[in-house]
Amino acid sequence: MSNRNIQVEPMVGHAVEDQTVEIVERKGIGHPDSICDGIAEHVSEALAREYIERVGRVLHYNTDETQLVAGSAAPAFGGGEVTAPIYLLIVGRATREYEGTKIPTEPIALRAAREYLTEHIPELSLGTDIVIDVEFGEGSGDLQEVFGDSGRMVPMANDTSFGVGHAPLTETEQIVRSTEHRLNGEYAATHPEIGADIKVMGKREDDHIDVTVAVAMVDSYVDSMDDYRQSVRDVREYVHDLAMEYTDRSVTVHVNTADDYDEGAIYLTTTGTSAEQGDDGSVGRGNRANGLITPNRSMSMEATSGKNPVNHIGKIYNLLSTEIAQRVVREVSGIRQIRIRLLSQIGQPIDHPHVADAAIVTESDVPLSTIEDDVAAIIDDELANVTGITDRIIHGELTTF
Amino acid sequence: MSNRNIQVEPMVGHAVEDQTVEIVERKGIGHPDSICDGIAEHVSEALAREYIERVGRVLHYNTDETQLVAGSAAPAFGGGEVTAPIYLLIVGRATREYEGTKIPTEPIALRAAREYLTEHIPELSLGTDIVIDVEFGEGSGDLQEVFGDSGRMVPMANDTSFGVGHAPLTETEQIVRSTEHRLNGEYAATHPEIGADIKVMGKREDDHIDVTVAVAMVDSYVDSMDDYRQSVRDVREYVHDLAMEYTDRSVTVHVNTADDYDEGAIYLTTTGTSAEQGDDGSVGRGNRANGLITPNRSMSMEATSGKNPVNHIGKIYNLLSTEIAQRVVREVSGIRQIRIRLLSQIGQPIDHPHVADAAIVTESDVPLSTIEDDVAAIIDDELANVTGITDRIIHGELTTF
Amino acid sequence: MSNRNIQVEPMVGHAVEDQTVEIVERKGIGHPDSICDGIAEHVSEALAREYIERVGRVLHYNTDETQLVAGSAAPAFGGGEVTAPIYLLIVGRATREYEGTKIPTEPIALRAAREYLTEHIPELSLGTDIVIDVEFGEGSGDLQEVFGDSGRMVPMANDTSFGVGHAPLTETEQIVRSTEHRLNGEYAATHPEIGADIKVMGKREDDHIDVTVAVAMVDSYVDSMDDYRQSVRDVREYVHDLAMEYTDRSVTVHVNTADDYDEGAIYLTTTGTSAEQGDDGSVGRGNRANGLITPNRSMSMEATSGKNPVNHIGKIYNLLSTEIAQRVVREVSGIRQIRIRLLSQIGQPIDHPHVADAAIVTESDVPLSTIEDDVAAIIDDELANVTGITDRIIHGELTTF
Amino acid sequence: MSNRNIQVEPMVGHAVEDQTVEIVERKGIGHPDSICDGIAEHVSEALAREYIERVGRVLHYNTDETQLVAGSAAPAFGGGEVTAPIYLLIVGRATREYEGTKIPTEPIALRAAREYLTEHIPELSLGTDIVIDVEFGEGSGDLQEVFGDSGRMVPMANDTSFGVGHAPLTETEQIVRSTEHRLNGEYAATHPEIGADIKVMGKREDDHIDVTVAVAMVDSYVDSMDDYRQSVRDVREYVHDLAMEYTDRSVTVHVNTADDYDEGAIYLTTTGTSAEQGDDGSVGRGNRANGLITPNRSMSMEATSGKNPVNHIGKIYNLLSTEIAQRVVREVSGIRQIRIRLLSQIGQPIDHPHVADAAIVTESDVPLSTIEDDVAAIIDDELANVTGITDRIIHGELTTF
Repeated sequence: MSNRNIQVEPMVGHAVEDQTVEIVERKGIGHPDSICDGIAEHVSEALAREYIERVGRVLHYNTDETQLVAGSAAPAFGGGEVTAPIYLLIVGRATREYEGTKIPTEPIALRAAREYLTEHIPELSLGTDIVIDVEFGEGSGDLQEVFGDSGRMVPMANDTSFGVGHAPLTETEQIVRSTEHRLNGEYAATHPEIGADIKVMGKREDDHIDVTVAVAMVDSYVDSMDDYRQSVRDVREYVHDLAMEYTDRSVTVHVNTADDYDEGAIYLTTTGTSAEQGDDGSVGRGNRANGLITPNRSMSMEATSGKNPVNHIGKIYNLLSTEIAQRVVREVSGIRQIRIRLLSQIGQPIDHPHVADAAIVTESDVPLSTIEDDVAAIIDDELANVTGITDRIIHGELTTF
Repeated sequence: MSNRNIQVEPMVGHAVEDQTVEIVERKGIGHPDSICDGIAEHVSEALAREYIERVGRVLHYNTDETQLVAGSAAPAFGGGEVTAPIYLLIVGRATREYEGTKIPTEPIALRAAREYLTEHIPELSLGTDIVIDVEFGEGSGDLQEVFGDSGRMVPMANDTSFGVGHAPLTETEQIVRSTEHRLNGEYAATHPEIGADIKVMGKREDDHIDVTVAVAMVDSYVDSMDDYRQSVRDVREYVHDLAMEYTDRSVTVHVNTADDYDEGAIYLTTTGTSAEQGDDGSVGRGNRANGLITPNRSMSMEATSGKNPVNHIGKIYNLLSTEIAQRVVREVSGIRQIRIRLLSQIGQPIDHPHVADAAIVTESDVPLSTIEDDVAAIIDDELANVTGITDRIIHGELTTF
Repeated sequence: MSNRNIQVEPMVGHAVEDQTVEIVERKGIGHPDSICDGIAEHVSEALAREYIERVGRVLHYNTDETQLVAGSAAPAFGGGEVTAPIYLLIVGRATREYEGTKIPTEPIALRAAREYLTEHIPELSLGTDIVIDVEFGEGSGDLQEVFGDSGRMVPMANDTSFGVGHAPLTETEQIVRSTEHRLNGEYAATHPEIGADIKVMGKREDDHIDVTVAVAMVDSYVDSMDDYRQSVRDVREYVHDLAMEYTDRSVTVHVNTADDYDEGAIYLTTTGTSAEQGDDGSVGRGNRANGLITPNRSMSMEATSGKNPVNHIGKIYNLLSTEIAQRVVREVSGIRQIRIRLLSQIGQPIDHPHVADAAIVTESDVPLSTIEDDVAAIIDDELANVTGITDRIIHGELTTF
Repeated sequence: MSNRNIQVEPMVGHAVEDQTVEIVERKGIGHPDSICDGIAEHVSEALAREYIERVGRVLHYNTDETQLVAGSAAPAFGGGEVTAPIYLLIVGRATREYEGTKIPTEPIALRAAREYLTEHIPELSLGTDIVIDVEFGEGSGDLQEVFGDSGRMVPMANDTSFGVGHAPLTETEQIVRSTEHRLNGEYAATHPEIGADIKVMGKREDDHIDVTVAVAMVDSYVDSMDDYRQSVRDVREYVHDLAMEYTDRSVTVHVNTADDYDEGAIYLTTTGTSAEQGDDGSVGRGNRANGLITPNRSMSMEATSGKNPVNHIGKIYNLLSTEIAQRVVREVSGIRQIRIRLLSQIGQPIDHPHVADAAIVTESDVPLSTIEDDVAAIIDDELANVTGITDRIIHGELTTF
């Protein structure tokens, strides 16, 4: 066992699954805030990889301030048009030169953003529906210092910050997450009428779960009001079936509840995202690192997307604590809920946090004492391999929102 | 009693004050994220007041996407200079015309932002140290619909959202909050060397509290390294004395711990904010509506600053729930901790939330049953007067960050 | 004959062809100023056509303030890269709505700009080498008044302005113009190594003509310094042969004279335009409406590119006067040089200028009196058909730079 | 006598004063294009002075791409307001660091622009009526090379370019120039109702001069339509009297001819410049270096304002040729008109132009041979002292527009 400050304690109170009221939310990949998160992170990965390829190490950068200014659109059954473009500004800092090698940071960022949008929001025509701009400043001299070879050395914490992770997900959390993932995945593959901007809110009161889904419908695939209503019904049915895979509780699904058919006020869009009409977006204002907004659980305010994965302690600790929590419940039996918190100590190596604490609700018949060593060992092991998180982030293996 | 869905329940588990580890953070008024919050909210207030004065009602607007792009500076003992200006872009939507009356929304916003900075970050020379720009789009047609006369009618919820509030503050929370407030208040009045960018982190383990303060020192009031070190010591002493007013626990205060005197690496600035050198900022990424970041407590992700106070349900419910929690502990005895949550129901009047639930930890000798009616009555009363929150926001009586 | 104020006079002095020193310049299609001119005008044409298609008439707009902010590049033999993108901002005013029909002015402009660049500067990768942005304001209320059906009615002059045109071109002018046109045309078709940014200056002293050509070479088609030198020699030879088609005078051709082979300082680019590295551009600062800069001749300062072709009197008169001058020398014998000036009278129909004056140098044996009626008749006829100019502009049949 | 290539020749044809039709224009200091010129040049001067003060020499910069995007305003008798701010973007390149010394180029530019506007367009409230932004790139490596100590060494021509100057001014030119200068000077001092945006066009046909003046009236000093009409009459009378000081020809003055009193369409503004409502501006699209637009005379297309005064050959030669022409007519009798042209030779010292030619119309009784040596001597002397032009530009002693 290392000399790390690891604490394993019982959590007082009920697991979230057992609380009376639970609220969970997920902003889907096409939500304006998520677009910003996704681009910020994708740009970050691209920069990290290019730095490694060109100069053998990751240089100073942060791309976590992407801002989206909404456009205007005139959707219409059968196909409308964008009337004023969305404006997306990638803001951040990035080192442009290292020992004589110039790194084309802004073109790299633009290319990454374009790739990302092409893949995830295909209805958006780049350059006409959306203008993508970039402005990278240079960091201060000391911040431009480079990180160890390929990031292999354990860096020092650059801030006093913390990360938090939870496992396992509750039924409601699983439903909310899966609803968005699968609508934007398998469902969209055969239903082009649903846009990528899907917002899901789950509310559980005791044993009843309400799932409220807002889906931006794409006008070119919706020919009439009847068509639209059918699309809404199809989504409702699909989500209900999906939810039943995760729970035995009763579930009610609501889709596009703000629609008013009599007024003709429906959620119809040209590009599949509300960014086309009045909804601005920012990084870090939506989902936490585990893909959810969970007021019943401890959350960090850190915007992880776009942060430098080598030395940004908030990003690393949020992702690592989530990984630890998930591994613990995979490998250790008898845990109903675990929360991992990692608190950094500025100036110390990041594999030695100020404190790493695990708060656990065990199954009723499992004394904490029987598992706490196993839990501590996993935490210790994961901290020892903290730089692995960086590699996985760079290669796009971890999601941040 | 009304027909509102109000639930008062016992909270399972310890009050935060009684938990083993507690973490609290506050980003001071001069932090780049807080500058964005402050300007977004001040601009919002100014717009609301001008709308009322000019057309008798608050029109559609949101100014919650202010973005700050950091500048560069060359601080020096005795006074350095900004070498590249900070760029602050106020983004949002605002209605420019109503029944033939034009409202100069962008000049109003610029004026409000300038007033705010002049008052709160006086070391920043407007127009040369910082460029303030504004870009307001117009909302969609239906969103431009006006709100009831002066906002007196109870509006409908425009979204499924929720707010959460807590009371009372723990000792650690009080210390963190007061440290920033009083440093930026009474202390700064006689110590011009401290800048407005003050970040405070409190960590309590059992009965020991660590208060970590990062203060941007203003170079024109610091003549030498000795001077600087003395300034750091003065802050430490002041904060320690302050902390002892709030607690009997042991307290250690750390100030500017990232300094390295041998390397000459210290936290010296020309303008008193790290925005002058590399630190960007955004709305809604810092303090929650109660002025704190509290991972031990339930938090909402909503950016409240800059949101329209008439109909933005997330803003209203976050502020209202905090108000309710505070009033309850003021008026009802025997409560160790209360959490109020308000969940909206889209399309319903905002004084009738989908659910209003109070979770309470009572003093050990107080049965919940003896107070729950009182609590419910206060919740009911506050909901009945929900529009009062809007008025107080507009007049700057409530803080949002 | 109409009642137009047409004056035909002898020009005192020598024709430019007979003056001792003559200076002529042309900025080629890939020069940063010309890129701005070209996009401004192409956007203007696209808007005019869309207005006609959507609402039957051209609405108020001007797109004559496009600005190009240069990027950075690291060219290299065999292929380098752009390291910071060019930023091109299309600025102007355009009417977004007319009797309930919305016109997507900004997307139209973006599309037109992209088409233009794809066709004329093919080495520029849109979206990564160059960011294209647009910001259209709305004009003042009275300026938004629409123009007659499809622009058929003769509009009133909106300003006191004038236009000037000349014919025929001198030998030096023909050489300068043809050099750029043919290098960017037939020569580029088989010599991909030359970029679109070609600047040509002609200077004639008596019977000797110096042609100085600066050609941005494209690095991916140039493998070595020897290659580069060969490319320069090839251009020199081509231009010399070309020049001899237009003159019997002696001609010296200089290509990329600022090169310093010993220092390795050559005019090598990645994209074929100096906009990639440090050279900004603006509308209206380069070629006049006849495609040349001619200090020996009277010139107008008007930026014609991007101006509204229905009512912008400076644009119409500059193009019309050039058309008139050319037609006169085509149809009337005995003219060595003609200058046409049209001066508008604000508030009067544009087919009735305040004064239309022709200044003519006749061949030595031709008395002006024998041709002046013919000249006046052509001027009168062209003015009577002034709206034809508008149609030809809209359909891209006239060049403005 | 030096070995400079100086040619003095007779000009064939009439002096402009003796031609039948003459057209002259001046855009006053508050015209959107002139605002850009003025700020570009004032920023340039400030940068040059700061460079000299901080590092002893002028570094590479150009600030000649300032762009003004018009605002919106709602003028009203007695005082209206700006409803959307003017946006002014100072674009250019400037060296930020030299041998370890950082130069705050952007703050210097912002400060200079603010000073300039405060002095010349006092009705504009900085920061609310107008947003001033700046974006300076860095030039390419070789362009960042510094210039000789304080610019004392004679630099090499960086381009093939030319400059042209004329003297003396014709009566019409004097009237046009003085009208604007004196309206914006002595007249404005006692007539605050006239704004700085004054456009003057002079047209002379034989011995009649029409002076057309467009004056932006400032609403806070104009209480009624009667007031406005009186203001227009006052300007007309003042300009007529002024014109008679310069000529014995007959003069008609027209003021604000586009007004339509019946429609209430008048030239009323809140800030005294049309930039407040729809009129954009750019550098280099208005007055030439002598303050006038003179289609009857040879003009250069160079934008002189904002160009680097140490090595930008177009700027230096335009100003120098004007200086030479003026000095010649001051010191040498018998000249009715002189035109000086200076053509640079790339890579050669700028005091040795490729050719310097003077074209002269002498008084009828003065043979050119009696004065040509005197003229050549002055040209030679001025070229020998070419760097003096740079100093005078830097110290704001020469105007560029």
